Amino acid sequence: MAEKTEKKTEEKADDNTIFVGKKPPMSYVLAVITQFNGNGSNGVILKARGRAISTAVDTAEIVRNRFITDAKLKDIKIGTESVTNEEGRESNVSSIEISLTVSKKQK
Amino acid sequence: MAEKTEKKTEEKADDNTIFVGKKPPMSYVLAVITQFNGNGSNGVILKARGRAISTAVDTAEIVRNRFITDAKLKDIKIGTESVTNEEGRESNVSSIEISLTVSKKQK
Repeated sequence: MAEKTEKKTEEKADDNTIFVGKKPPMSYVLAVITQFNGNGSNGVILKARGRAISTAVDTAEIVRNRFITDAKLKDIKIGTESVTNEEGRESNVSSIEISLTVSKKQK
Repeated sequence: MAEKTEKKTEEKADDNTIFVGKKPPMSYVLAVITQFNGNGSNGVILKARGRAISTAVDTAEIVRNRFITDAKLKDIKIGTESVTNEEGRESNVSSIEISLTVSKKQK
């Protein structure tokens, strides 16, 4: 029920960061592929918090194994973020950042 | 309903590996602390698959922030494992390995 109100976390930042939220992994896989192919980017960062962390890992693995096989895992960071819920209560949530890179292609 | 049948993934290996499953993060936090303090180990590896990946990250973050503040993240690996379900169908599941270390204490 509350899922609709949390769509903010799925917004796209203006750099190469893709925020992974509650959609199925393939939605984010498509976003990563678009970033690499369409925008000609060499690096994509997947960010996720809480339960979405496993979706972020799924996304990175699907991209690497099925779509962009020359993509490398550059870095994986985990951390803790403080979030305030609707009632104003603060709580901690784990986060992950997965950096994927491809070596520049000659065209 | 099927949760009870999957407890195998929570078994403890004989080395410093802790398999993170569907219990709350604090169960695994306790296991990590026991490994570090009771068994005098300098390193613990948290392994998890699928949805439990976020619990593994939670566990590592709770240990680092609240209990063993000198614990360092040595390495984080992600990968894909092939699992066969009860009907004999094969599917891929993402996995994570988080290595935590503490520097040896002088006693």
